[in-house]
Amino acid sequence: MSSTSNTSANKPLYIKVHESDNVAIIVNSNGLPAGAEFSCGLVLKEHVPQSHKVALVDLAQDEPILRYGETIGYAIKPIPKGSWIEESLVRMPVAPLLETLPLATKVPAPLQPLEGYTFEGYRNPDGTVGTKNMLAITQTVQCVAGVVDFVVKRIKAELLPKYPNVDGVVGLNHLYGCGVAINAPAAVVPIRTIHNLALNPNFGNEVMVISLGCEKLPPERLLNEGGIPIKVVSDDVICLQDEKFVGFMPMVDAIMKQAEVHLAKLNQRKRETCPAADLIVGLQCGGSDAFSGVTANPAVGYAADLLVRAGASVMFSEVTEVRDGIHLLTPRCATEEVGKALLREMAWYDDYLDRGQTDRAANTTPGNKKGGLANIVEKAMGSITKSGTSAIVDVLSPGEKIRKKGLTYAATPASDFVCGTQQLASGMTIQVFTTGRGTPYGLEAAPVIKVATRRDLAARWHDLMEVDAGTIATGEATIEEVGMEIFQVILDVASGRKKTWADQWGLYNALAVFNPAPVT
Amino acid sequence: MSSTSNTSANKPLYIKVHESDNVAIIVNSNGLPAGAEFSCGLVLKEHVPQSHKVALVDLAQDEPILRYGETIGYAIKPIPKGSWIEESLVRMPVAPLLETLPLATKVPAPLQPLEGYTFEGYRNPDGTVGTKNMLAITQTVQCVAGVVDFVVKRIKAELLPKYPNVDGVVGLNHLYGCGVAINAPAAVVPIRTIHNLALNPNFGNEVMVISLGCEKLPPERLLNEGGIPIKVVSDDVICLQDEKFVGFMPMVDAIMKQAEVHLAKLNQRKRETCPAADLIVGLQCGGSDAFSGVTANPAVGYAADLLVRAGASVMFSEVTEVRDGIHLLTPRCATEEVGKALLREMAWYDDYLDRGQTDRAANTTPGNKKGGLANIVEKAMGSITKSGTSAIVDVLSPGEKIRKKGLTYAATPASDFVCGTQQLASGMTIQVFTTGRGTPYGLEAAPVIKVATRRDLAARWHDLMEVDAGTIATGEATIEEVGMEIFQVILDVASGRKKTWADQWGLYNALAVFNPAPVT
Repeated sequence: MSSTSNTSANKPLYIKVHESDNVAIIVNSNGLPAGAEFSCGLVLKEHVPQSHKVALVDLAQDEPILRYGETIGYAIKPIPKGSWIEESLVRMPVAPLLETLPLATKVPAPLQPLEGYTFEGYRNPDGTVGTKNMLAITQTVQCVAGVVDFVVKRIKAELLPKYPNVDGVVGLNHLYGCGVAINAPAAVVPIRTIHNLALNPNFGNEVMVISLGCEKLPPERLLNEGGIPIKVVSDDVICLQDEKFVGFMPMVDAIMKQAEVHLAKLNQRKRETCPAADLIVGLQCGGSDAFSGVTANPAVGYAADLLVRAGASVMFSEVTEVRDGIHLLTPRCATEEVGKALLREMAWYDDYLDRGQTDRAANTTPGNKKGGLANIVEKAMGSITKSGTSAIVDVLSPGEKIRKKGLTYAATPASDFVCGTQQLASGMTIQVFTTGRGTPYGLEAAPVIKVATRRDLAARWHDLMEVDAGTIATGEATIEEVGMEIFQVILDVASGRKKTWADQWGLYNALAVFNPAPVT
Repeated sequence: MSSTSNTSANKPLYIKVHESDNVAIIVNSNGLPAGAEFSCGLVLKEHVPQSHKVALVDLAQDEPILRYGETIGYAIKPIPKGSWIEESLVRMPVAPLLETLPLATKVPAPLQPLEGYTFEGYRNPDGTVGTKNMLAITQTVQCVAGVVDFVVKRIKAELLPKYPNVDGVVGLNHLYGCGVAINAPAAVVPIRTIHNLALNPNFGNEVMVISLGCEKLPPERLLNEGGIPIKVVSDDVICLQDEKFVGFMPMVDAIMKQAEVHLAKLNQRKRETCPAADLIVGLQCGGSDAFSGVTANPAVGYAADLLVRAGASVMFSEVTEVRDGIHLLTPRCATEEVGKALLREMAWYDDYLDRGQTDRAANTTPGNKKGGLANIVEKAMGSITKSGTSAIVDVLSPGEKIRKKGLTYAATPASDFVCGTQQLASGMTIQVFTTGRGTPYGLEAAPVIKVATRRDLAARWHDLMEVDAGTIATGEATIEEVGMEIFQVILDVASGRKKTWADQWGLYNALAVFNPAPVT
């Protein structure tokens, strides 16, 4: 990556990512006016907003527009050097054909091991390690959510003070369990997601289930389908329609009583020193802009490499945001089998979107475009840099539990809260989230570390963002420095030494289980 | 409808709905053993559980099984008189073909007007009348939900005490606004649902919108698409990414400040006497059993007729639960055009389910089956009795705003909370909900009156159910008497004179906006 200047943001400044690029993005906060001259001699022909692209050379009609060294589109008409490459000037390329991609042809060599990094986590009976110590209440169906919310409030007020080592209690609310066509092929996704959510390491292997009694996803099915069968004692499954409950309060009392059994066990847990290898880190971006791919995402990619080197599990996701960069990922797959699994997930999603009469172009938002991203191809190029440089060792279908150390591709929608929920189901215990436009997104079940792509966002949202990666664009810090900072923040937050802003304010998004099946 | 006895539930008792029926359902709480003899001389060949079907005559293989005077299936093998017609003995008929149905051929004559019934409601500037006086906070996208939840808590604690005429504040949370393929054809459904939710009469025409700033469904689109354009002043749209917000608290303060503007206006509202014609009542059932169609649903049907006679608007819904009884509804449509609209909604849903490789049979739950419902055909026959006997004057696509007085078919999924959310968007100010198995379902935005189909459920859930329609099965009350009771309870609850159990306990289900479009 080269920028035209390392000094203050007042001087005209652009960032060119790859030596072959014929465009660059403007760094200066308010964009730059016509006539602005860069140190290389380039003069702007017109005003270009911050994070939008400027042509570095004269582009002929149909000439490829190169960013990240990749074709992000074609010039609709001739574009003179120094012009603003507004999105309407860019014709989107077709997505890479899945059939012809090279699999496992450029498998990165194992990265150099990184020793000595630890965090203070909660070790579980199944060997996993949590970063929080939460009681989770699983629900077979949304019908019971009002009752669970009622009980959660009482548990917080009446029981939690007695169990000071427990960080909180969370009802695993969702909109499914009934009403969804439970035997439709795609219903496996919500079923395994709800199943695996209960097993998230932050819940300490303590599972209790609230059922209504007439739902399509009864507890015996939820507990046994979609992953490793979950063993519970009979008191752990409370069915509201059970004839023993005469009136509402006995239901509440039964849930409170069983919650206390689990709280007592959770309360015995103490944080202990664990190797960084015990971390399961989810990576995500949302509200992206053209800086995402040059500041926050590469820094997260560097942190991902540090985590992989330390032996941790790292997940990246968001199918529609890697689809156009898939040709860069299939060669990195550790084996042909992993490559095929990656293609299978891409094909499944192509088909899913196709059935809804849309395609991956539906991903980009007005905010992305305002942030300078012309299309999903450009967004994807930035998004996949989060994955760092290591081999992709495994691929998960939506909601599957993570199986390996190293870098895993966990297929999920790109929608922030859906991706977050699916990564929680896959076992994520802490998430790193980059944002260019800004979002107050948070999850109650796992800490979310937010990384701003721009200095001005980090300054403005000083009490919502954990890391400022905008310093990379201004030349005040390197990708490596910010990457190391993110790695350190992960260890601090995972240890409970540092609280995220979302946790301090209590800003949490509802779980949003991915349901590609019809609702009946 | 005929039952074999009018005395206590100890004597063997069955209910035969229509004179041509060749099956009946068992009334007695614990079912009846082999050898039990009914007053008509019928002797059970085997144990039959409560609400399950007994053969009244010898049925030959492939003979139609008749209930409600309709074919609910065919005998898989010969079934001797007195046998339990377990669901595996019933072959499901194909759904009625939509192309050949008679439209508006048996339009019921207008029912006799019913004068003099009133309720105490909140009249709105647009002429609608609410049954609650709530501040609603609309959200363009789930990203802002954590912030809205934070503010709602503060409004409840700090502002509501100053505005005693306001019943509450509700964040209109949903999982969409971004992440959904916003230009996919089916995305019109979530867009118009979120749009029309803001206009529910219980919210007093006071609209404020919280936006993130980069979402696919920006405020200007949400306010202007999907229904009557919503006019707001600029302060009513608060965008969290707005550069004027430096830090989190200024966002909170801005929302609180604008909430107070609306709270002050809402606080000036007083309940006033309104004709029953100003009610907009939603009908729904959930956790149905074989009693639903003979006790609670016919009583609700009678109440629906009373409401229609009083000039009110009444909605029934749940596509997969009317699909198999559609041939009984198309003749009742007021005009051919209404009939065609009804068929259009059925066809849309057939296609939606088909694309998900499932069909309307996915509707029935294990609880329905345990409750004696062999299949969706039998369930549908019971479900549509909620609609009473009046002409169907209009048909709404999911989330469309109600347009007429009288009986409207509002197409929605059958899933309880999805149907409830869609009916709220259509303008429902109060809901009547029948249940055989029992559900604690409730909505914060509108009162939900729950009607039990069986005496034992009503007794057991004495503090969750408002009306006991089980007295119809035991002969202690008539359909007309329970129907009138439901009508009176609607007027009492709509007037704030009576509080539902869900409102007393604060048992509320999350909104569940119907989204048939893909998530990106």
